[in-house]
Amino acid sequence: MKKQIGASTTFFPMPSALVVTGTAKNPNIITIGWICIVSGNPPTIAFSLLNKRHSLQLIRKNPVFTVNIPPADKYKEVDYCGIVSGKDTNKFRDVNFTALKSLNVDVPHIKECPLNMECKVIKEMELGERAIIFGEILETHVDSDKFTKNKIDVKKINPLVYCSTVREYWNLGEKIGLGFSAGNCFPKEKKSK
Amino acid sequence: MKKQIGASTTFFPMPSALVVTGTAKNPNIITIGWICIVSGNPPTIAFSLLNKRHSLQLIRKNPVFTVNIPPADKYKEVDYCGIVSGKDTNKFRDVNFTALKSLNVDVPHIKECPLNMECKVIKEMELGERAIIFGEILETHVDSDKFTKNKIDVKKINPLVYCSTVREYWNLGEKIGLGFSAGNCFPKEKKSK
Repeated sequence: MKKQIGASTTFFPMPSALVVTGTAKNPNIITIGWICIVSGNPPTIAFSLLNKRHSLQLIRKNPVFTVNIPPADKYKEVDYCGIVSGKDTNKFRDVNFTALKSLNVDVPHIKECPLNMECKVIKEMELGERAIIFGEILETHVDSDKFTKNKIDVKKINPLVYCSTVREYWNLGEKIGLGFSAGNCFPKEKKSK
Repeated sequence: MKKQIGASTTFFPMPSALVVTGTAKNPNIITIGWICIVSGNPPTIAFSLLNKRHSLQLIRKNPVFTVNIPPADKYKEVDYCGIVSGKDTNKFRDVNFTALKSLNVDVPHIKECPLNMECKVIKEMELGERAIIFGEILETHVDSDKFTKNKIDVKKINPLVYCSTVREYWNLGEKIGLGFSAGNCFPKEKKSK
């Protein structure tokens, strides 16, 4: 039995990424759940921002940003960066995060996040009360201690998960299978007409 | 210490959603990790598809779709729907999924997925070798046994998580905090000039 809850943005699991905008000298952090990869060639990521957001003004002045994947144990810091505005406070200082100089863009990435992407804006799209920002990913940083046998170790990254509507932060449980592999157990049959 | 791995789409956690296109009589399923909510007003979701995908042809013929959140224990079915093309086979039959009639769109949702959204295409954007499909969410269905005290119970939904690049399916672990609440522990200070 299905229950209808109406037109809703109830959708999870989501990442809870920290997007840094502004400049190297004056960076700001915003928490974004509505973010995903949109292309592999070139690597491109997109996220949604309310038009009134301070971060949107900053990204229009300096059209670069970094995406930072926080570990689950920083969920309080992540939540804080989504609650307050950079107009009013310096969030790097408030949550004691360290700004690391980026290689390709004049905006820092966050040391305390094990996975970071440097991005430059390639497109902005209007969508009602929101702007969708598309950024080409120029470089990816991973903490050097988050690899096992030269492969990124998800358990060591320990990424934070967000579930909207219920407004809950979760961590990951267990690896249960491999992509482009687990599905090979099904026989592929001819389509019936 | 950070290690640089180049311009990459390494980004997780991601959902691993099943998008159904086509028609009620002839539906097709595709697995999409590059999908996220982009607006709340009206509720809107977007996802990325390679131009060559069969599902893109189907969605252009009938510009509606459903988004279905699979439970973690269906990871083999999910993986299969990402490996094979609906041009060659009937994936509903192959993985033994049940097509349920939708209320607002002429394309079904999947019974075996505890969370489903009915959507109509409101925009398509070209992005190199890909199309980004934007859909307004018209209705959300949740299995009636996935609530606890009238609130959606994430543990009961048990959503599947995908980690790209390492190509791993994961389940969720534990709830660790509440959004728009956990961050209130930090003192908000005046921005230093």
